[in-house]
Amino acid sequence: MTAAPDLEPLRGRPGVIRLHGHRGARGLMPENTLPGFAFALACGVEILECDVLFSREGTPVVTHNPRLSPDMTRDAEGGWVAAPGPLVRALSLEELRRFDAGGLRSGSAYAARWPDQAFLSGVPVPCLDELAALLARPGHGRVWLNLEIKSSPLHPEHGPPPPEQVAAVLAVLDDYGLAGRTLVQSFDWRVLAELRRQRPSIPRSFLSELSGEGATPEANIHDGSPWMAGLSLAAHGGSLPALVAAAGGQAWSPHFGDLTAEDLARARALGLIVNVWTVNRPQDIDRMIALGVDGIITDFPGRVQHRLKAQGMSWR
Amino acid sequence: MTAAPDLEPLRGRPGVIRLHGHRGARGLMPENTLPGFAFALACGVEILECDVLFSREGTPVVTHNPRLSPDMTRDAEGGWVAAPGPLVRALSLEELRRFDAGGLRSGSAYAARWPDQAFLSGVPVPCLDELAALLARPGHGRVWLNLEIKSSPLHPEHGPPPPEQVAAVLAVLDDYGLAGRTLVQSFDWRVLAELRRQRPSIPRSFLSELSGEGATPEANIHDGSPWMAGLSLAAHGGSLPALVAAAGGQAWSPHFGDLTAEDLARARALGLIVNVWTVNRPQDIDRMIALGVDGIITDFPGRVQHRLKAQGMSWR
Repeated sequence: MTAAPDLEPLRGRPGVIRLHGHRGARGLMPENTLPGFAFALACGVEILECDVLFSREGTPVVTHNPRLSPDMTRDAEGGWVAAPGPLVRALSLEELRRFDAGGLRSGSAYAARWPDQAFLSGVPVPCLDELAALLARPGHGRVWLNLEIKSSPLHPEHGPPPPEQVAAVLAVLDDYGLAGRTLVQSFDWRVLAELRRQRPSIPRSFLSELSGEGATPEANIHDGSPWMAGLSLAAHGGSLPALVAAAGGQAWSPHFGDLTAEDLARARALGLIVNVWTVNRPQDIDRMIALGVDGIITDFPGRVQHRLKAQGMSWR
Repeated sequence: MTAAPDLEPLRGRPGVIRLHGHRGARGLMPENTLPGFAFALACGVEILECDVLFSREGTPVVTHNPRLSPDMTRDAEGGWVAAPGPLVRALSLEELRRFDAGGLRSGSAYAARWPDQAFLSGVPVPCLDELAALLARPGHGRVWLNLEIKSSPLHPEHGPPPPEQVAAVLAVLDDYGLAGRTLVQSFDWRVLAELRRQRPSIPRSFLSELSGEGATPEANIHDGSPWMAGLSLAAHGGSLPALVAAAGGQAWSPHFGDLTAEDLARARALGLIVNVWTVNRPQDIDRMIALGVDGIITDFPGRVQHRLKAQGMSWR
């Protein structure tokens, strides 16, 4: 039986809101890459958010899209991969490692969203092992991982079954001694239920999206949704925080546009940590600071640091 | 007699404009700090621009303002230094190293200019030695230094006499084997004349400002200006490029707002490398790319990389 870790480093308090570097620091460095994570650490970020998918062998790898994106992936010859891009799950680790995830394709809508992101070359999709090794280095002992498992109930072909996903991630966390400083989040609440079965001591964060404008192909929160692992909002008076707490979650991670002051107060009363994603515009950052969330997940760590400092606040 | 280095890495060519990271990457990381320079290198920047002043002992240190700025300097207790800030030249190295140059003072106009800059703590003003050591590391052998000596003919109290400034900088460059990949620039052309005397093989870049809206307390270019080391624009038909070439410059570094297509063509015909400072707005970057300068000095390396990529160009 493993003792549950102290979650204080994830909780806000008066004067402190925690800063999560989204995919490292996507606004400035290529997302989900080792140079990006290293940069976030160099900025003083103490919680690294990352995405995990699985190679053909079932090895956890750090990348967001089920198919390598033609807008941010070059092949071994330097050419941009053709749409729709190869399925990560169909690639061996060796095949995956030949691709270059260091730059955005000029002219793509995605590149236009990140006009200040550095353009690197020769940067592979990392294995979760490599990111874990970075965090196991001296000097990074206080850094947490906010690890999103990108499982989808709609697309079982995107990864192994949830029990295998969880077991593979746990094996890496154990190898690097990170089980005491990792928060696992997922839109696919089946994965969180499975994690609770396999290793109840690791805190779980329930990702939610009501509007459907963001990360999930459809909003994941409505009764009957395959993302909710059979849980029912109606059974909890329509309260998402109540549902997350009842499901054994330590944290709730709503889209920032979905969060109301009432729900935040409810979540707090239930002991939940509330982390909002993905907050980049100064006015949105200020609004989340005013609401008093626990954590802000952002592509621009320095920007959130400045907004906090402007209020006399900090992120640690 | 030292052979003059090959200046090709500083020259643009069709499809290539060189990228100079201004004070590292001031837009995103604290200026003139080791984490800032390391970040610029991680972005693939191959020319690091930096500023050099001198401690009481005459040791070259990497910082911009003759007095440590109250907007970006904390004391050993974490308090912001009071205006006008201590004179760098009056501080011993030991005293200087107690200050923290890692963050901007919230609420200051300077902080408002750099809303995305990371806020770090425990980051001293580096000695030139430390920056040189970074560039001497394996993997950085192709990186150039664009080293600005912040001498002022109006304020001899800001540093040692030019011959001592030059000798102290050369000693560090020699210690780290960087004399073959350093460009020295200055608004104070007396320093460049002195460098030519002491070590003619090191390329010299003549900084100029016509409008006076930027770095110098007054525009440094007008006949009779104490910044021009007795040189006369009138004697060269009013042509700044002709004057720089006659003074033995390898490079000219005008404010980007001062540069005309005519002057650029003239400079090129004279064999000069033309680097413009400090270009941050996308429209200004695009205009400099269209003009076809050799180098763009910017606070946002990723932004210049994107603008170059959008034209099918690169920085190397």
